[in-house]
Amino acid sequence: MTITSFHPTPRTLMGPGPSDVSPRVLSALGRPTIGHLDPEFIGMMDEVKELLKYAFQTTNEFTIAVSAPGSAGMETCFVNLVEPGEKVIVCVNGVFGSRMVENVERLGGIAVVVEDQWGHPVDCDKVTAAFKANPDAKFLAFVHAETSTGALSDAKTLCQIARDNDALSIVDAVTSLGGVELRVDDWGIDAIYSGSQKCLSCVPGISPVSFGPRAVAKLEQRDSKVQSWFLDQTLVMGYWSGKGKRSYHHTAPVNSLYALHESLLMLQQEGLENAWARHAKQHQALKAGLTELGIEFIVDEAYRLPQLNTVKIPAGVDDAAVRATLLNEFNLEIGAGLGVLAGKAWRIGLMGYAARSENVALCLAALKSALK
Amino acid sequence: MTITSFHPTPRTLMGPGPSDVSPRVLSALGRPTIGHLDPEFIGMMDEVKELLKYAFQTTNEFTIAVSAPGSAGMETCFVNLVEPGEKVIVCVNGVFGSRMVENVERLGGIAVVVEDQWGHPVDCDKVTAAFKANPDAKFLAFVHAETSTGALSDAKTLCQIARDNDALSIVDAVTSLGGVELRVDDWGIDAIYSGSQKCLSCVPGISPVSFGPRAVAKLEQRDSKVQSWFLDQTLVMGYWSGKGKRSYHHTAPVNSLYALHESLLMLQQEGLENAWARHAKQHQALKAGLTELGIEFIVDEAYRLPQLNTVKIPAGVDDAAVRATLLNEFNLEIGAGLGVLAGKAWRIGLMGYAARSENVALCLAALKSALK
Repeated sequence: MTITSFHPTPRTLMGPGPSDVSPRVLSALGRPTIGHLDPEFIGMMDEVKELLKYAFQTTNEFTIAVSAPGSAGMETCFVNLVEPGEKVIVCVNGVFGSRMVENVERLGGIAVVVEDQWGHPVDCDKVTAAFKANPDAKFLAFVHAETSTGALSDAKTLCQIARDNDALSIVDAVTSLGGVELRVDDWGIDAIYSGSQKCLSCVPGISPVSFGPRAVAKLEQRDSKVQSWFLDQTLVMGYWSGKGKRSYHHTAPVNSLYALHESLLMLQQEGLENAWARHAKQHQALKAGLTELGIEFIVDEAYRLPQLNTVKIPAGVDDAAVRATLLNEFNLEIGAGLGVLAGKAWRIGLMGYAARSENVALCLAALKSALK
Repeated sequence: MTITSFHPTPRTLMGPGPSDVSPRVLSALGRPTIGHLDPEFIGMMDEVKELLKYAFQTTNEFTIAVSAPGSAGMETCFVNLVEPGEKVIVCVNGVFGSRMVENVERLGGIAVVVEDQWGHPVDCDKVTAAFKANPDAKFLAFVHAETSTGALSDAKTLCQIARDNDALSIVDAVTSLGGVELRVDDWGIDAIYSGSQKCLSCVPGISPVSFGPRAVAKLEQRDSKVQSWFLDQTLVMGYWSGKGKRSYHHTAPVNSLYALHESLLMLQQEGLENAWARHAKQHQALKAGLTELGIEFIVDEAYRLPQLNTVKIPAGVDDAAVRATLLNEFNLEIGAGLGVLAGKAWRIGLMGYAARSENVALCLAALKSALK
């Protein structure tokens, strides 16, 4: 086959991520590559750290961006903090909780699974009971905003339960960061990771991570080396911190970090509370329109994510055909169901730059047409 | 501090990587983000695979791009192929051989180290002797082009030694791919990884990897799960191959893959042999100029890399001051020495798009001025 330059058809991205990337971020992404040890680049990294601290609402010095997607951010938290033989209470109410179990087991940890129904939040009482039954559990891991279902869990209460049981919390904020209230310091979150491609509306491939003082202490007291050299944060920190001289660990994804810098700057300029309010407002507009179309939500209003709307595929409707129509006729991407919701649900994202009135209007009009 | 959009000063990148990125690649990078399961994107991924096969000179179906930097590509090869308790002969003649040892040990493997002096190639006789002393060794791992020293090893002979001893070869081609002769199939290489930011002249953050049939068979026969969920290629392959439907594993770094596609296309359009010849030619021009300046090479001509020129810092010259002058006055980056060569050597890269007459001319003129 003859291969030519790739020119993607511009799409409106309203799936579970990647979300729409603003022209400002794409413009930053394409700026000239400079060296990963260039003083200008090191200065930009320091700004990324500051902007990430703001986004996470934390003063944690250990706040960086892992040079790989959110799944690697998850693995960073587990392989650095959990040692073989240690027990982790893992809450599973969707795909990403199950992935946490995989992470714990692959590093030789023991996962105690607290299961909840897909589309429901983590049940705090079950977690308390799990700690009673497992007083030796050293960690509590859960997903703040389940991308596979669109359900929000009560991170503040869950982290308090972890503290009451002398356990460290590991929180998945891939879909929550920038879209709903999240306060790392106020809520006492010990370790948290996110993704660039959800409510930050940056290009995919980067994972913000923050460790609080208790997590850093745990990392420093490890008996064994971290199983992954690439994700070993005791080494990575030599590159991400320190005044002046930085030690080489790996070559940072220079241009992707330009893009993350710009997307975080946009969030700071808008204001975090304003961004949360915008997501809530656009969700209300989408909800009103979907209700008119007779489309029902899977997740109860009390714990529904504004940025990820999981809705039932109406009876008799061909899932794949509708999504193909949206993509081919309207250049609009919405998400398919994942795991137990495959074929039963659509996931409509209103994340970051995608949470705009024009996107809601397009989505509703296109769905109306495709469902005719 | 008040943070504003980041506008890097354009630099000429002649260090050990990242190398200069061409405007074509930056332009591709900044194109609109589309979904990682969009049929257009899947089609582009198929083209990336074809182009990578050409660059590696292989028909390996298992030829993909890991969604993280070269260090993660290295880790991908080790954690997927080597199981705990298995023995690996690891050749160490620079920083990256040592990193391979770290990889083997962290996954619970046994590293048998064959050491050679920095700046020298791997000694094939020592490797043969190591196999005699360790008939149970299942792998031979070495670096084709050592980025820390600029020395080229004889990959063809080393892979033959591995085959003669029923062992699989794991080859680091981070700095060699696209810059010097490399023939995966002809040389019988079983597993190989590279980086995007060297002679491919793409942005950093992506790692091409290829597994031959013997490596795939080893992966399929594993007793234990791969320790890393993120790097588990038995899962990743569900996303990178198959006709039509692809299964979600992680969100691919969409825009970085646009850039890789374009850089590989440029390589194909130039022709691999022509690219190798261009690196050799520009190296000769650089060598002539450096000799005039009285600057000596560290690596013997017989195994010197054209794309990474490691030279002695002349007596009495302030390493950091000269590099600062090059950067601040000429916007030219060259590399510092790494490991035992820190403070003693400079590394001048002529990689990919950087291997051009204008770069050589600038480098020589700037060095001449800075050394006055």
